[in-house]
Amino acid sequence: MHKTKSYAAFDPKSPLKFYEFNRRKLNSDDVLIDIDYCGVCHSDLHEVRSEWSNTTYPFVPGHEIIGRVKEIGSSVTKFKIGDLVGVGCMVNSCGKCEPCEGDTEQFCQKGASFTYNSPDPDNITTKGGYSDKIVVNNDFVLKIPENLDPAAAAPLLCAGITTYSPLKYWNIKANDKVGIVGLGGLGHMGVKIAKSMGAHVIVFSRTENKKADALKLGADEVVISTNNDEMQKVTGTLDFILDTVSAPHDVAGLLQLLKIKGNLCMVGASPEPHKIPSSVLIFGQKNLCGSLIGGIAETQEMLDYCGKHNITSDIEMISIQNINEAYERMLKSDVKYRFVIDIKSLTK
Amino acid sequence: MHKTKSYAAFDPKSPLKFYEFNRRKLNSDDVLIDIDYCGVCHSDLHEVRSEWSNTTYPFVPGHEIIGRVKEIGSSVTKFKIGDLVGVGCMVNSCGKCEPCEGDTEQFCQKGASFTYNSPDPDNITTKGGYSDKIVVNNDFVLKIPENLDPAAAAPLLCAGITTYSPLKYWNIKANDKVGIVGLGGLGHMGVKIAKSMGAHVIVFSRTENKKADALKLGADEVVISTNNDEMQKVTGTLDFILDTVSAPHDVAGLLQLLKIKGNLCMVGASPEPHKIPSSVLIFGQKNLCGSLIGGIAETQEMLDYCGKHNITSDIEMISIQNINEAYERMLKSDVKYRFVIDIKSLTK
Repeated sequence: MHKTKSYAAFDPKSPLKFYEFNRRKLNSDDVLIDIDYCGVCHSDLHEVRSEWSNTTYPFVPGHEIIGRVKEIGSSVTKFKIGDLVGVGCMVNSCGKCEPCEGDTEQFCQKGASFTYNSPDPDNITTKGGYSDKIVVNNDFVLKIPENLDPAAAAPLLCAGITTYSPLKYWNIKANDKVGIVGLGGLGHMGVKIAKSMGAHVIVFSRTENKKADALKLGADEVVISTNNDEMQKVTGTLDFILDTVSAPHDVAGLLQLLKIKGNLCMVGASPEPHKIPSSVLIFGQKNLCGSLIGGIAETQEMLDYCGKHNITSDIEMISIQNINEAYERMLKSDVKYRFVIDIKSLTK
Repeated sequence: MHKTKSYAAFDPKSPLKFYEFNRRKLNSDDVLIDIDYCGVCHSDLHEVRSEWSNTTYPFVPGHEIIGRVKEIGSSVTKFKIGDLVGVGCMVNSCGKCEPCEGDTEQFCQKGASFTYNSPDPDNITTKGGYSDKIVVNNDFVLKIPENLDPAAAAPLLCAGITTYSPLKYWNIKANDKVGIVGLGGLGHMGVKIAKSMGAHVIVFSRTENKKADALKLGADEVVISTNNDEMQKVTGTLDFILDTVSAPHDVAGLLQLLKIKGNLCMVGASPEPHKIPSSVLIFGQKNLCGSLIGGIAETQEMLDYCGKHNITSDIEMISIQNINEAYERMLKSDVKYRFVIDIKSLTK
């Protein structure tokens, strides 16, 4: 057993606080990781507040984990002590169903073990990366390119793969016109990755506030979505839209911006159904789809790609003692663009 | 000028009745067709009743036209007198925009000339195939395989291409599990075409009534969509769903039937927006799309394909004097599966 320090939620309303628990003894195919950094995803907060499912408390969030291998099980050959590694949203899956065999473990028919609030092989609820160590099956441990800043690489494990996977699946290529809707943790990664693929990137934002930042991140254009004239000008011109907004919004209106046979991919789950007239899809032969993170092989591919193109997240580093304040700022979109916890701040 | 007999609507509420008008003199690239048969599409009735746009009266419906070439313009080389030919939903387009150059004339940026109730090159409103002759630019005239029954081939020009195009675009192949929702004029063509592509075809129907007919048409299975147990059994199993229903219905529920990365294509335009929770697309990486008829090159490809596979529509032939009664029966889905007008009945 490995005594582990963490920050945990104990109920849906109270601030997170210090918590100690034991990680399991290594199985032969496990890796023990000393965690250095953990990104802060909006999903963490949804689960802290039990907004998505029944959260089991004490609850330790965090699924953008970066650290170094401390110990390996007897059958592990892919990793050695000291390797820079990452863990994303999943820590296990059945490995035998059609989705698992198709490298889409996130859709495992028996239910993937997610990194937190999920049953793990020991029937203990999984606990995430707001902690100083983690034990993970080596098939779910990713190699992090050593040329990347490890703290800024943490958000690649969720925000990176969530945006890379649909851009890759829908074959975004040089000169494609790609719209990115929403410029938060996901959106800013979408801009960087789409740009690296050679796309002409247009960021859609409700206000002028984010214009300069979007251009600095690499966007070619910024369209203010509340300005009808600006929206009219780009109507029917986009090959692809990556919609990262998880609040209710006008998806049918965004579909009008697509070219014939264009595609809008949603990666943010709105709490309300979208109202989609069939005519906006029929006239113009358009597609509306969704995408959920990505499989393990694709996550490694994304990390290697980001290593090659030197892509990381823009982050604001915090101590774990500031996590509750960070949540409040995240709710106001007051972060550019991802908080990352410096885990060495984690002392009682 | 070519004096033409027809049946026309004169207002949204009165029965269609006999009407004479002149077709234009042939331009050098035009073809004059003696019409033999014309299919009856639900769109005809929507336009008769001015339910979609402002219908210009007198209005002559009909866009599933089969006949023989009577005369050709001086520059026409593709056709000769006596050829068996067809005209579908379109009779012209600009030919120069991106959609036209991409063989998707139905999305012409200047607006395609549709076969009825559309401005034609003479700025006269186009008039359809409930008439004994038509003059059409030869680029919009299709060759009909001589081995097909010409009356039963008429519905290929709309119902055939509307179902063939998405099945082809989404690459339906042997052993794919394909759901067909709705068993009317479109749905029954969907069954035949999907089956000819080697798919395992499952028809979804609200009642047991259509079960025997669906199996006779070639369906491998029939699922009663109001039976939860039957729906549960096929949840997560379909590669593709062709949804031909134009009334409000539960599209989100149908999306649950798809496999991971599966695709639902709507070809029926419901008058109300569909409510689509983003989660049903995100979990399972699913795709919702629409499709509108097909381009001219693809329509010819479909006709050649149907010639090769000996596919036509199941029809009920009527005299034009029975068109008003046929509309009433069509509204009650009392037709297997398409009315076709025998145009030789068209005498004053």
